[in-house]
Amino acid sequence: MPEISPFDVSPWGIGWSGWEPSRQARRESVFSLSNGHIGWRGTLDEGDPCETPGSYLNGLFEHHPMPYAEDGYGYPERGETMVNAPDGKVIRLLVDDEPFDIREGRLESHEQHLDFRAGTLRREVRWTSPSGATVRVESTRLVSLTHRAIAAIDYRVTALSGPLEVTVLSEIVANEPLPEVHPDERVMDPLRHPYEPVDRAVTASGATLLHRTKRSRIGVAVAMDHVVSEAPSSIDTEASDDVARTTVTARLTEGGSIRVVKMVGHEWSGDLTDAALRDRVDAAVATAARLGWDALAREQRDCLDDFWEAADVELDGDTRLQQAVRFALFQVLQSAARADVRSIPGKGLTGPGYEGHTFWDAETFVLPVLTYTAPGAAAHALRWRHSTLDTARERAGQLHLAGAAFPWRTISGRECSGYWPAGTVAFHINADIAGAVMRHVRTTGDEEFEREVGLEVLVETARLWVSLGYRDAHGVFHLDGITGPDEYSALVDDNTFTNLAAQRNLRGAAQAARRHSARARELGVRDDEVGEWEVIADAMAVPYDEVRRVHQQAAGYTDLERWDFEATSPDQYPLQNHFPYFDLYRKQVLKQADLVLALQLFHEAFTAEETARAFAYYEGLTVRDSSLSASTQAVVAAWVGQSELAIEYLTEASTIDLNDLRDDVDDGLHIAALGGVWTAVVSGLGGMKNGPDGLEFCPRLAAPITRLSFGIRTGGRMLRVEVSGHTASYTLSGGPPLPIRHFGAAVELHAGKPTPLPIPPAPDPGPRPSQPKGRSPEEVRAVKGD
Amino acid sequence: MPEISPFDVSPWGIGWSGWEPSRQARRESVFSLSNGHIGWRGTLDEGDPCETPGSYLNGLFEHHPMPYAEDGYGYPERGETMVNAPDGKVIRLLVDDEPFDIREGRLESHEQHLDFRAGTLRREVRWTSPSGATVRVESTRLVSLTHRAIAAIDYRVTALSGPLEVTVLSEIVANEPLPEVHPDERVMDPLRHPYEPVDRAVTASGATLLHRTKRSRIGVAVAMDHVVSEAPSSIDTEASDDVARTTVTARLTEGGSIRVVKMVGHEWSGDLTDAALRDRVDAAVATAARLGWDALAREQRDCLDDFWEAADVELDGDTRLQQAVRFALFQVLQSAARADVRSIPGKGLTGPGYEGHTFWDAETFVLPVLTYTAPGAAAHALRWRHSTLDTARERAGQLHLAGAAFPWRTISGRECSGYWPAGTVAFHINADIAGAVMRHVRTTGDEEFEREVGLEVLVETARLWVSLGYRDAHGVFHLDGITGPDEYSALVDDNTFTNLAAQRNLRGAAQAARRHSARARELGVRDDEVGEWEVIADAMAVPYDEVRRVHQQAAGYTDLERWDFEATSPDQYPLQNHFPYFDLYRKQVLKQADLVLALQLFHEAFTAEETARAFAYYEGLTVRDSSLSASTQAVVAAWVGQSELAIEYLTEASTIDLNDLRDDVDDGLHIAALGGVWTAVVSGLGGMKNGPDGLEFCPRLAAPITRLSFGIRTGGRMLRVEVSGHTASYTLSGGPPLPIRHFGAAVELHAGKPTPLPIPPAPDPGPRPSQPKGRSPEEVRAVKGD
Repeated sequence: MPEISPFDVSPWGIGWSGWEPSRQARRESVFSLSNGHIGWRGTLDEGDPCETPGSYLNGLFEHHPMPYAEDGYGYPERGETMVNAPDGKVIRLLVDDEPFDIREGRLESHEQHLDFRAGTLRREVRWTSPSGATVRVESTRLVSLTHRAIAAIDYRVTALSGPLEVTVLSEIVANEPLPEVHPDERVMDPLRHPYEPVDRAVTASGATLLHRTKRSRIGVAVAMDHVVSEAPSSIDTEASDDVARTTVTARLTEGGSIRVVKMVGHEWSGDLTDAALRDRVDAAVATAARLGWDALAREQRDCLDDFWEAADVELDGDTRLQQAVRFALFQVLQSAARADVRSIPGKGLTGPGYEGHTFWDAETFVLPVLTYTAPGAAAHALRWRHSTLDTARERAGQLHLAGAAFPWRTISGRECSGYWPAGTVAFHINADIAGAVMRHVRTTGDEEFEREVGLEVLVETARLWVSLGYRDAHGVFHLDGITGPDEYSALVDDNTFTNLAAQRNLRGAAQAARRHSARARELGVRDDEVGEWEVIADAMAVPYDEVRRVHQQAAGYTDLERWDFEATSPDQYPLQNHFPYFDLYRKQVLKQADLVLALQLFHEAFTAEETARAFAYYEGLTVRDSSLSASTQAVVAAWVGQSELAIEYLTEASTIDLNDLRDDVDDGLHIAALGGVWTAVVSGLGGMKNGPDGLEFCPRLAAPITRLSFGIRTGGRMLRVEVSGHTASYTLSGGPPLPIRHFGAAVELHAGKPTPLPIPPAPDPGPRPSQPKGRSPEEVRAVKGD
Repeated sequence: MPEISPFDVSPWGIGWSGWEPSRQARRESVFSLSNGHIGWRGTLDEGDPCETPGSYLNGLFEHHPMPYAEDGYGYPERGETMVNAPDGKVIRLLVDDEPFDIREGRLESHEQHLDFRAGTLRREVRWTSPSGATVRVESTRLVSLTHRAIAAIDYRVTALSGPLEVTVLSEIVANEPLPEVHPDERVMDPLRHPYEPVDRAVTASGATLLHRTKRSRIGVAVAMDHVVSEAPSSIDTEASDDVARTTVTARLTEGGSIRVVKMVGHEWSGDLTDAALRDRVDAAVATAARLGWDALAREQRDCLDDFWEAADVELDGDTRLQQAVRFALFQVLQSAARADVRSIPGKGLTGPGYEGHTFWDAETFVLPVLTYTAPGAAAHALRWRHSTLDTARERAGQLHLAGAAFPWRTISGRECSGYWPAGTVAFHINADIAGAVMRHVRTTGDEEFEREVGLEVLVETARLWVSLGYRDAHGVFHLDGITGPDEYSALVDDNTFTNLAAQRNLRGAAQAARRHSARARELGVRDDEVGEWEVIADAMAVPYDEVRRVHQQAAGYTDLERWDFEATSPDQYPLQNHFPYFDLYRKQVLKQADLVLALQLFHEAFTAEETARAFAYYEGLTVRDSSLSASTQAVVAAWVGQSELAIEYLTEASTIDLNDLRDDVDDGLHIAALGGVWTAVVSGLGGMKNGPDGLEFCPRLAAPITRLSFGIRTGGRMLRVEVSGHTASYTLSGGPPLPIRHFGAAVELHAGKPTPLPIPPAPDPGPRPSQPKGRSPEEVRAVKGD
């Protein structure tokens, strides 16, 4: 039977009552707080029990050798793995000298609650110690969305029996153990104890620890300060190489309480001097301490109010789905809000999964959400990619290619993929990045961003495609021997997704170069080069099976042997854990949407009939062993009128993390899949498309959803779309008029007044496409016990 | 300028005068002695200076973890690496207490000579010590072709000044350092000190050391005994865990000499008890000692006389080529003569290259030579493959395939390839093995071998093909997503070589199953299964380019982009060291003959015109970055009448080791390439084909060769073919008449009387095909300095 989400349902938050050891890691991931710079997993304050301590700083990593059984030219020699930052979220407690540990004594009640509007993780525990003392511990954490270096904890202990002695030990702990992220000793060895101590400073109420990673030579400063109130107390701080500890002791009468507000500052740099790092972190903590908890918490709520005003999605008819969509939006925002010029890792800053690496899904699944709801964060993420261009140019040179070749997986910008058939040759990442640039510019209208950042990315990726492909005797341009999005295919010729993405990339580069011709000349762009990009874009191969009348995922794909789904048992999924790659690669079986993702992202290249036929064809081959598939299938299912299927895929996408559909949430949240949830709602049910012709909406509700409201930011203004019954109503917040299309008809929206438009009746979508045996959304849910 | 071989030219041996440190490793490889069971590199007796000590026992290995940056289903977890056996060839010498070391004092003369008829490595040194004592050291080594456990050294020191005191220290040394065969510590660590001592025994004149590898738990016993003569002397032996040392001291007057004959026995086993191992090795040494040096040396020569009687190839017109061909034959024989049920590693037992692994080239390039010249050795090697069938069946099961999947590289029979695109999926190895079985049975007529050994191999490999491929809607059978012989292509569909090899495999299995129906039933072969093999064989896809009128190496191959040879500089070869695999894989560029190897091995599938067109086409793409290519190109060049090119390729093949054409002879000889030299002469110039229709010869001499004589064994008798002028003369040694074809015409040969037949005039072969820029045989030779 499908698991019912173990989390409490509420529209604006997510909670969990009680405590079970087996789900500790999942709670830690789901209750993560982050501002994109700092990430704190939702561990218990007292540090134990704990599955994965998880205190991260975006961009902080240690490197290690990459092991190969057989080496090859161009294989990355050095891997990068995110390591725990010195952990400032630990607050241990002694009650009458007995350690507060929820596994001992009696746990009267235990609740954690993540608040999407307050931006806090609140915890309340009532606990009786083995010797009979009862306390209530209330803690509220925040990772500040307004002060990027700051996280804070409001920690209160109340004596429910008494009198009793409480000792609060508030710590920074460096060199916390990292989980076994790799089976190889050569990899794990540098990660086990990554820091050497550099300096420390102590005051009565706080401390600063300065460390440096041993190999990557990154300096990290973490500082804390405390304000104690509500009870007379003593406070003292001491520090050793790897631990700083502030000790607060107080004697509480029954009903009495003590409150400790902890401000924690975080800075890292590969360039700054130790002194500069220390000054910065101390200044950040001093500012936060001066503001105090209440002001920090108020700023946090204001910031989120601003976000939700534009971005909120309201879904009537399914309270779990409503919660899941807001959870998804909240975590996507957290992954990037204050990342500044940093990447958005696959797991955000919520766990050690994928070693903290950033992949193509940042640009493809996460940035669309941010561009429409928090464009400043999207711009920062794109600026980060732009900042890695030199490394990407070097990599292209190593591969004997022109322009830039961005890495398949990385932290610093260097390629860290140790399996090239699904790494180096997944060149579509370059067009994914270019596409994110184009979408961002088109949506925000930010010409300065395009000139300063976007153009160079577009130019260098366009150059890559020219050097990567070739024109055959008939003039058709081919991209051979590469790998598209689907990871159960590799080294294919003319992957349709990649070819269409490259085509868009080439055209976008040409247009941007013409718009910013002076800057283009500075980048060495020649006029004939721009013309060549357009010629090549027009000559791009798009393989089509004339017999089956369906687009091919890659040349010859539809002629391959079909996977024997009938002989595959449910416990053989995910297939990659039970079958060799070569067998997956040579047969028709899809880990994830690939051609169907092309139907979504390059919709202008397909007629409605082609879209419907292709969707039906590839539905029969897609097993969704990737978390990135369901949301795409939801969007295209909605477009082709398969609304029941769309809702099922949306539901599946929304439960990947909350129901731990893949048994891996312990390692962190699937940020891209969470981004996909928003897209499944807005692009799927809301029917939003944003192509060369501008914004279009074709919204259609589907049971059980009775009303849908969503908002986007575009060109500095907000647009809210409200769908109920047979009407879609469009409201623009301000600024100049916005031309859109509604079911193909051009409409101009004017600020302030809602424009209600009728939703035409849905055409007959035909029969519901079927999935491989055992892989329909219902069947996948049914397999997943807990 | 091309290097002139540094070796002395003589028709029946190879020597080197003088001594240069930079060429020490090459001498060690070229002067290797082996009987297939024991391998001794041609190191100096005194152990120093030495590049790679190299004392090997076939099948003796240590295992180690296989490191992967990213793991995958079915990846081998455990690698196997050949380790040095305890080394019994060391004989140190002290002259008046000064160590004999050719780097010190004065080296008056130094010669090593490998004698192909005596089967010995002889060395003669005249040396004056730093303090002025002059000695002559003469040593002769043999690794016995008649006593598989025995190697021996006849060591004599003569005082050329005097009187002087000589001390001979004859040793067995265990745990000699292995070269860095892998950059990964996890791999190297277990290989650095692989043995633990188990037992030792000492007499006055010798010792036995018993060791066991720490992980693979293989027991190794090495024993030595000595007979001293020609001068009064004392002898004593002592032993520690890793060294046994017999010390002989004598006082020599000027002109006086002392002779030490050392018999060394070698045994290993993963199953035998320590006591049994020791008994065996002691018995072997006792037997050898009883025989004495002269009898051993006589047996060695008798054995080789017998071999050369049938196998010798005489080539008039090029003395270097004559020498090279005999060297090749001698080393091929040595790699397998007494291997018994053991493999023939890629480097034989001549060096640590490829970690001592055995590949497809054993069956494809080495076994043909042995089947025709030393069929007993070929049978042993095939019995070894047969003995690994259970492991191969397990591997097939792991890959969800039927039958048996033999490993791409191995020592024990377990897959040790750490790069599956050029390992696991190079399934042609299974058909290569089956083809070697079929060739052997056809040539020897050994029905018992076919019934006991061959049939099961044929059946299990046939089953593999059935499960690996599929029939399309038109009934055509395809093998998709596999890798053929060329290592600059991978994961292709319908590799012509593989498909034709599988076709032969399926037909051969069906025929053998019918010939041995009772045994086939025992192996669970069903009648309908046999029928299916033939149906599938007939339905096999063979891709052909109708436009270019040429067979395709794989489906679509001739449509791929052509490698930009014009932009590739000579120092970018071998390409794999300078370009990423993906770029090599997706373009038309060949590391080695692939379709051209199919032209050779499956000649019956191609017309003469198809052969000529395909050869010309693929010549333009083949860069010969593999040592396995030139001999195949020589054969097909000869067949299509490009005799000048054939001679150039034959010359190149014959110099791969002697001129160190690939800068890697230090790691051992290329046994398969040496096998190819014989094939280039016999199949190329001699025009020998052995297909379903029996033996055919179309011999044609080419300048500078003025006469060619070669012999093969078939059906228990010898056939000698002598070609000179316009006549080929065939002489059968005995037995029943032998039907052959001479230029297509059927002829029956009768024992004893030569049958001279005229050689028809050669048709016009058309223009000489061209090679990629810089890769003609002349250009490749020119690049190779020394």
